[in-house]
Amino acid sequence: MFGADLIGRAMSEVDTPGLVIDADAMEKNIADMAEYISSVPAGLRPHAKTHKSPIVALKQIEAGAIGSTCAKLGEAEALQRGGVRDILIANQIVGHRKIARLVGMARHCDIAVAVDTEENARQISEAAIAAGSSVRVLVEVNVGMDRCGVEAGEDAIALVKKVSSMPGLRFFGFQAYEGHLVMYGTRSQREEAVKSAFAPLIETRKQLESSGIEVPVISGGGTGTFDITSQIEGVDEVQAGSYVFMDAKYGTVDGPDARFNPAIYLWATVVSRPVPDRAVLDIGLKTATPEMGLPKFLDIEGTEITALSEEHAKVTLTSEDARQLAVGDKVRIQPGHVCTTVNLHDNYVVARNGVVEAVWEVAGRGRSQ
Amino acid sequence: MFGADLIGRAMSEVDTPGLVIDADAMEKNIADMAEYISSVPAGLRPHAKTHKSPIVALKQIEAGAIGSTCAKLGEAEALQRGGVRDILIANQIVGHRKIARLVGMARHCDIAVAVDTEENARQISEAAIAAGSSVRVLVEVNVGMDRCGVEAGEDAIALVKKVSSMPGLRFFGFQAYEGHLVMYGTRSQREEAVKSAFAPLIETRKQLESSGIEVPVISGGGTGTFDITSQIEGVDEVQAGSYVFMDAKYGTVDGPDARFNPAIYLWATVVSRPVPDRAVLDIGLKTATPEMGLPKFLDIEGTEITALSEEHAKVTLTSEDARQLAVGDKVRIQPGHVCTTVNLHDNYVVARNGVVEAVWEVAGRGRSQ
Repeated sequence: MFGADLIGRAMSEVDTPGLVIDADAMEKNIADMAEYISSVPAGLRPHAKTHKSPIVALKQIEAGAIGSTCAKLGEAEALQRGGVRDILIANQIVGHRKIARLVGMARHCDIAVAVDTEENARQISEAAIAAGSSVRVLVEVNVGMDRCGVEAGEDAIALVKKVSSMPGLRFFGFQAYEGHLVMYGTRSQREEAVKSAFAPLIETRKQLESSGIEVPVISGGGTGTFDITSQIEGVDEVQAGSYVFMDAKYGTVDGPDARFNPAIYLWATVVSRPVPDRAVLDIGLKTATPEMGLPKFLDIEGTEITALSEEHAKVTLTSEDARQLAVGDKVRIQPGHVCTTVNLHDNYVVARNGVVEAVWEVAGRGRSQ
Repeated sequence: MFGADLIGRAMSEVDTPGLVIDADAMEKNIADMAEYISSVPAGLRPHAKTHKSPIVALKQIEAGAIGSTCAKLGEAEALQRGGVRDILIANQIVGHRKIARLVGMARHCDIAVAVDTEENARQISEAAIAAGSSVRVLVEVNVGMDRCGVEAGEDAIALVKKVSSMPGLRFFGFQAYEGHLVMYGTRSQREEAVKSAFAPLIETRKQLESSGIEVPVISGGGTGTFDITSQIEGVDEVQAGSYVFMDAKYGTVDGPDARFNPAIYLWATVVSRPVPDRAVLDIGLKTATPEMGLPKFLDIEGTEITALSEEHAKVTLTSEDARQLAVGDKVRIQPGHVCTTVNLHDNYVVARNGVVEAVWEVAGRGRSQ
């Protein structure tokens, strides 16, 4: 049962497995981030890859965010359909079919996209001219994650000069994601590493601006670095996404752990209690992801999820409380990694004070094209 | 572009990321398994959790399979809607909402379900009587995976006697999945371990049958044990699923590796080539799963996928051939674990000789309730 029929029902009546937003907790996370961001120079462009929901994106914008970030063209389309007007795709859009979609969409909302080769920029430029649209372009710079992106300095400057001269494109600045650092070390180690990572790019920006090329923004950052990247002079936009829901992994990172609270959970049922110290839940690899650590119980001490198979979670019960769990009991489980877990679900059940208030589509789910 | 518009196009025109069935290879895997299974006492009831497609399930049945196995009620509903009539849900169905769906569906096709408690069996019995339907029930026995299930011997016999006496239920035998052994050791180590694991259950079956309780089937087995479990006297149905597509993990297991070939791939694009020995693909944790090992290139030597982030795969290129890869090139990637990878996709592109022949829905995707 997923749909209007759920609204007004107690969570005890809601079937499992399901993905549930705690509305109060999510709204508090959005408000707390908005309060923080109003105190620093950078703005917030929250990453929508976490929630994949234009409803949540508009709440963030209503609280002061600049717009949304996303990873894929399909996610951008889902955001646009839901009313978001200012969207940054923080990735390369490659191939003539996707570029046609990009420049088409750019006639109907304000799109920005990352590039890291002249050829890709030229293809977008030519398609934009043909479509009569205009696309904002950020040059992606590698700040140490060693994934996509050109190097700061000469390479970046050369690409910016080319991009800036292409019709149909508006040079919008630099995309620079320090993904390798968002969970790195202690708060102070992380601060030092992030500042070092961005320093060559900030210098590149200065060189460009001295030569008369304006760099509108440097955009980057994640939930683990929101309170570092946002304070670096020369960084304009922070793309933190996971803060809105948090997860078990970010809950162990000092910084976000102090400000944000779990606002999403998997709603699961105990389906088997074969021996006193083992329970089996009806969540597994098809409803929860393990790559950043296994999910955890939110409410019951003495419980450890020790394995996920496709549709089962094995739980070891080490306390008297935990051993009270019976077949049919429903429990709240915190995802290990919220972004990939959300992508396994079609809908959010939105609950407040234990009652269902809404059902929202995960509109960007599976939109990886 | 996913839909009828794709049909008849060359794969080079198909956008990425996408999940592609090689129709010839899949049909050969189905035929090869059918040929094998006709030579052994056990029948085949292929697990549909792998493909989640009634179209593929019906092909397997057409080749001689008894019916389908699935993990979830939602998957069973998807199979039924697609025309499958004999469906085993190899798991417990818990809670009154799901039990109502189960006994309702049992009026329209022949459903079997696993139980491991008297209470769950009684709830199904009562609901079936109220609905005027009849449900086949298998007692799940733990054969060493230590997940769900009662122990062979006294516990199993006691539960069988209770289940056998309940109206609305038809005792159908034992569900027994040796999931801990499907990738275990060498072929001969696996054979010894599987036989030992099933021995107490086979003995339990004999005891029941001597006492006059017929045990219609023992059902279990996976792709890694299909040629062992199917030869054990007293095992009637093998539930192997992955054989239909294979994946990188099962491709390393001796037995299935010799008989079945890769029949599915991720279709991916190179989106960045920042340095000579690195390429980045547009697949990641939202289109491919890492829990049984990272995906691999099917066609190009000297390539290693070293990391998946949400929408990126980092590839290290160690050969001259591999270093020819350019931005925009499309490549075939074999999933690490096919069952969970399929669950990330809405559709299959079905290709034969490099041309799209059909687009099929992954009808059971996300149907974990």
